[in-house]
Amino acid sequence: MSSSTDTASQAEINRLKLELQALKVEDGSEQIMLAQLGVTSMFGLPGDFNLGFLDLVEDHPTIDWVGNCNELNAAYAADGFGRVKEQSIGVILTTFGVGELSATNGIAGAFSEMVPVLHIAGVPSTMQQKTKPMLHHTLGDGRYDAYMKVAEQFSVAQAYLTNPATAAVEIDNLLTECMTKARPVYLTLPTDIVYDKISSARLKIPLSVEAFVLDKIEELVKAADGNVVILLDACVVRHHARKETKELVRKTGFPVYAAPMGKTAINESWERFGGIYVGSISHPEIKEKIESAKLILSLGSLKSDYNSGNFTYRIPTARTVELHSSWTKVQYSDHPGIGMKDLLPKLTSRLEAYKSAALRYDVPPFRAVVPQEDDNIISQSWFWPTMAKFFRPKDVIVAETGTSNFGILDVPLPNDSILLNQVFWGSIGWSVGSCLGAALAAKDKDLGRVVLFVGDGSLQLTAQELSTMIRKDLKPIIFVLNNSGYTIERYIHGETRKYNDITNWKWTSLLETLGDLDGTRSKSYTTNTKEELSNLLDDSEFASANKIQLVEVVMPMHDAPRALKVQAELSGKTNAYTK
Amino acid sequence: MSSSTDTASQAEINRLKLELQALKVEDGSEQIMLAQLGVTSMFGLPGDFNLGFLDLVEDHPTIDWVGNCNELNAAYAADGFGRVKEQSIGVILTTFGVGELSATNGIAGAFSEMVPVLHIAGVPSTMQQKTKPMLHHTLGDGRYDAYMKVAEQFSVAQAYLTNPATAAVEIDNLLTECMTKARPVYLTLPTDIVYDKISSARLKIPLSVEAFVLDKIEELVKAADGNVVILLDACVVRHHARKETKELVRKTGFPVYAAPMGKTAINESWERFGGIYVGSISHPEIKEKIESAKLILSLGSLKSDYNSGNFTYRIPTARTVELHSSWTKVQYSDHPGIGMKDLLPKLTSRLEAYKSAALRYDVPPFRAVVPQEDDNIISQSWFWPTMAKFFRPKDVIVAETGTSNFGILDVPLPNDSILLNQVFWGSIGWSVGSCLGAALAAKDKDLGRVVLFVGDGSLQLTAQELSTMIRKDLKPIIFVLNNSGYTIERYIHGETRKYNDITNWKWTSLLETLGDLDGTRSKSYTTNTKEELSNLLDDSEFASANKIQLVEVVMPMHDAPRALKVQAELSGKTNAYTK
Repeated sequence: MSSSTDTASQAEINRLKLELQALKVEDGSEQIMLAQLGVTSMFGLPGDFNLGFLDLVEDHPTIDWVGNCNELNAAYAADGFGRVKEQSIGVILTTFGVGELSATNGIAGAFSEMVPVLHIAGVPSTMQQKTKPMLHHTLGDGRYDAYMKVAEQFSVAQAYLTNPATAAVEIDNLLTECMTKARPVYLTLPTDIVYDKISSARLKIPLSVEAFVLDKIEELVKAADGNVVILLDACVVRHHARKETKELVRKTGFPVYAAPMGKTAINESWERFGGIYVGSISHPEIKEKIESAKLILSLGSLKSDYNSGNFTYRIPTARTVELHSSWTKVQYSDHPGIGMKDLLPKLTSRLEAYKSAALRYDVPPFRAVVPQEDDNIISQSWFWPTMAKFFRPKDVIVAETGTSNFGILDVPLPNDSILLNQVFWGSIGWSVGSCLGAALAAKDKDLGRVVLFVGDGSLQLTAQELSTMIRKDLKPIIFVLNNSGYTIERYIHGETRKYNDITNWKWTSLLETLGDLDGTRSKSYTTNTKEELSNLLDDSEFASANKIQLVEVVMPMHDAPRALKVQAELSGKTNAYTK
Repeated sequence: MSSSTDTASQAEINRLKLELQALKVEDGSEQIMLAQLGVTSMFGLPGDFNLGFLDLVEDHPTIDWVGNCNELNAAYAADGFGRVKEQSIGVILTTFGVGELSATNGIAGAFSEMVPVLHIAGVPSTMQQKTKPMLHHTLGDGRYDAYMKVAEQFSVAQAYLTNPATAAVEIDNLLTECMTKARPVYLTLPTDIVYDKISSARLKIPLSVEAFVLDKIEELVKAADGNVVILLDACVVRHHARKETKELVRKTGFPVYAAPMGKTAINESWERFGGIYVGSISHPEIKEKIESAKLILSLGSLKSDYNSGNFTYRIPTARTVELHSSWTKVQYSDHPGIGMKDLLPKLTSRLEAYKSAALRYDVPPFRAVVPQEDDNIISQSWFWPTMAKFFRPKDVIVAETGTSNFGILDVPLPNDSILLNQVFWGSIGWSVGSCLGAALAAKDKDLGRVVLFVGDGSLQLTAQELSTMIRKDLKPIIFVLNNSGYTIERYIHGETRKYNDITNWKWTSLLETLGDLDGTRSKSYTTNTKEELSNLLDDSEFASANKIQLVEVVMPMHDAPRALKVQAELSGKTNAYTK
C-alpha cells in the first residue's frame, strides 16, 4: 500500500505542476502569488480534502506550512499574521466541514476587526459536489452548500472554484477584495483543482478628486484657531495609514490621542501624544482635553462598546471630521470614495500652516507611574506601569481580552512597538493563536520581542498552540495572569459565582508538557510578589528572550485594572438581566 | 463596586425567580423541565450575555454546570451526553457570537450524526437586538442575525425568544423537535428573558396503520426460506430502538450484523451476532454471508462513505427491507410515516414463526484473535484484539476518528457496553469532549468504566478538556495512541509528508499539568512494548479505574488497523487530486 501511495502522490504532483503552468494568466500583466503578497507562513491542519494542495505548499520555496493544533487556533494565528505583517494577508487552510467550521469564530473575529485573512477550504471534487454523495464531513441531507452559507456571513468575497480556466481571475478578484477591504475572503478548492499565479493589476484602485473636502476641512481647522485634536483608531492600522498619519501629526502639531484599538498607531513617545481616549473611561484630564476641543479630526474610528467607553463619546458631530478607509465625513456630510490613505498627505500639506496655532495648546505627557503600595501583592495597578519599563522599541505586544487589554491601555508603549488586541470581537483565547501568527510575521519584519499577556481562563481555551510556538522555535514571553478564573466576567456579573472559576493548572510545566520534552528549549517561572516579578524583569537573560518563556503572575482574584472596573460598571448596566 | 454588584445580582435573581413563575404554562398540562428530560449536566462557558441565566443553572438543585475549557469541547461534551443518556438531550450554553460560533463544528457534527443537542446562546437584550448598537461580539455592520443564519444550517428548529408570553410554547416546540428528530435545536436567550417549565404533551407522536407493510415484509421473509439477515446501523441507537431490536433478533434467530455506526446496538455476545459489515472492508466471510442472503432486514441504516466501505454495499434493493426512524422501504417502495420503533414489535410477532428456518443457517462467531507476533512492538493488529479481553460489561468505549474507530471495529465488545464513534462527521478531537459528556451520562445511568481511545494528533485539538474531567472527578481510562502524527491522513495521502507530523508532547505529565497539581488524583503510564501494555492491563488496580488514568501507547508511525488500510485505499482513490 505504502509504495503505491507514494507513486500515486508523485504522479499527482507532477500533473499538478503542469496544471499550474496552464493556470497562469496569459495577458502579460504582472503576476503575483501569495508569496509575492508577503505570505511566508500558512496556517491550518491537514485533512483528507486538502492534502494534495498541501503537497504544493510544503514544496514551496518561501511559504512555510505551520501546522496548528486546531483550526480555531489556526484562524487566530492567520489573524495575528495579518495584523502584524501589513500589506500582506493571513492565510488559513482547512478541510471541508469539520475543519472550516471549527475556524468560524476566528474568521468572524477577523471580519469584525478588519483583518485580511484568506480562508482556503479543501473540498470534495467538482464531480462529488454535483452528485452530493453521503461523504464523511457532510450533513447527510445533500446540503453541500451549508458551509458556504456560513462562510458568506463572515467574508467579503467568496470563490467556489469549479473551472480551472476561470480560477486565476476568480482568485485575483478575491485577493483584491481581501486586501482593499481588509477583511476575510473564502475560497473552496476542490480536490481536482489547484491554483497558483494570479494577476495583481487590479490591486491598484483609482481615486476621485477631493479638493472640495479638503477645503471644507481646512475651513473648520482655521475657525478652530489651533484648538484641534487628532483621534486615532483601528482603521489607521488596518488600512495601513500609519506613515501618512505620522506625517500629519508631526507637521501640524495637533495634540493626538488614540482609542484602544488605535493604540500604537503612532509612537507613543511623540511629544504631542496625550494618551488613550475611551469616552467616560478616559482619565478625566484626557476626556476634558478632547471633548472641549473646537475640532476633532477622527482617523479610522470604530465606535464599538468596549472601544468607546460603552458609547460615552461626548463629541458633537458639528465639531468632528471623520476620515475612514473609503469615505470621509465632514460634520454632517458624507463623502463616499474619499479614503484616508490618499487624503492624508494632501490634508497634511493644507494643515501644516496651522502648526504655530496648534502649539499654543499644551499636551500633558502620557506617562506610567508605578504606585507606591505597602504590600508585596502583585496588584493590577502596580503590574501594568511596571511592565511599561520592561518594554523595548519594536516589541510586539499581544493583549488578551479581559484584564490584559484594559490594563495595557494606561501603559505608554515604546517607539515602533505594535500592540495587538481584539477589543471589538473580544473572543477569549484569541491572543494565544494570534501571538503565534504575530511572532512569525514579526520575524519577517525584523521586529523585536513578542510579549503576550493572557489570563489563566483565556489561555485554557487555546493553550495547545504553545506547542506550535515551540516547534517553530519562536520565543515569546508569555505572562499568564493567574487570578483564578474569569475576572472580567466577575466584574460584569457573578463576582463570587462558581461558573467564573476554572481549574488551576500547573502553569510552569505547560511548556515542557506541550513539546519541550527535555526542558532545554523553554523556561517557566512563578512570581507571587512584586519583588519576585521585579527581579525577573531586571534579569537580562530573561529580558533577552532567547527561548520561549512563560511567567505565571499570581494576582488577586477580584482585582482589575482601572479601565476595566469602569467599563464593567457601564457594561453591566447595559446587559443587566432585567427588562 | 463588588458589594453593589452583589446586591444587584441578588435583586435580579429574586426578580427572575418571580418571572419564572409567570412563565409557567397555564393550561394544566403536564409540565416538564430540562431536568425532567434527564438533563443533569449542562456544558458551556460563561460569557457576559449568559451570566444571568447561569445564576439559575448554578442554583438549580439537579442540573450541574460543567464549565468547559472552550466551546468546541463543550459542544462535543453535549454530544457525548446526548449519545449515552438515551431519551435525554445534551445541552450547551454559550455566549453571543464568539461563544456560539466556536461551537459550530461540534453542533454540525451532532446534526450530521443525529444526536439531540440543545444549543442555548445568551444574546443581547431584545431592545439591543432592535437598535443594533455596535456591541462587542458583533460584526460592526448591524447584522445581528448572522449567527442565527449559521445556527439554522445545523439545527432542525430554532427559537429566538423575544416575548415571555410565548416563550414556553416556543421552547416546547423546540424540545419536541430535538427529541423526535434526534438533532440539534437552537435557542437564543436575550439577557432580559429567561424560561423554565414547558409542556411535554406534544412529545407523544401519533401513529398510522402499518398492516400492509407488515404483510409485504412477511411475504419476503417467507420466500427467503430462513435465509434472512438483519443489519443494524446508527439510527437503531439514535432513535432508541435497542430494546425492540433485541426482541426481533432474539425471537427470529436471524443472523445479525452491524455497520460501524450500529456497533453495540445489540449485545455482541449474542450467539447469532456475526460481526461488522462495511461493504468491501468487511471480513470476506461476513461480506459473503450478508450479500448472499435472500433478504436483508436493514435497521436504521446510514450509508455514508466511512460507514459503508466507501459505498461498496453489494446488496440489491430487490432483496432489502429498510426500517428507518420515520419511514419504511420495502424493496423499491417507500412508506413514509411508518417508523422503526413502533413497527418492530409488530414485526417481531409476525416473524418469530420463521425462527426454525432461520436456525438452519449458522453464524460463525464474532471473535477477536490475538495474533502471534515475534516482536515486542505494539502493532495495531495486536493491540485491538488484546483490548477485547480488557473490556467489561457496561463499559462505555469512546473511539476517536482515525485509527481508533477503525481498530475497534474488529473487536467484539462485552454485553451492555456502549461504543461511541463519529464515523460520519469525523471531526478529529471530538472524542475528548464527547468522553467528558459520556462519562457524566454514564454516571447517571450507572454504567461501568469509560475508556477512551484517541490518537496523539487528535488529542492535541481538544486536550484541555481533560482538565474538566479532573475537576469533575471523572475517571476515564485514556489510551493515547502515540504514532507520531496523523496516521489516518498518511494512509490517505502524504505518507511521509511533514504536514502529517505533529509536535510530540510529554503525555505522561499532561494530567498533572492540566489540573492534578499534586499528582494524587491521576495516574499516567507509557507502554512501549506488548509486555508492558499486557502487564498494565492485567493490573487489577489499573483496571479498577479508581482515578483518571492516561496510557501513552507507543505504536509505529506507519501502522494502521486492517479496516483503515482498506478504507484509505478506497477513499484515496475517490479523493485523488486529479480530475
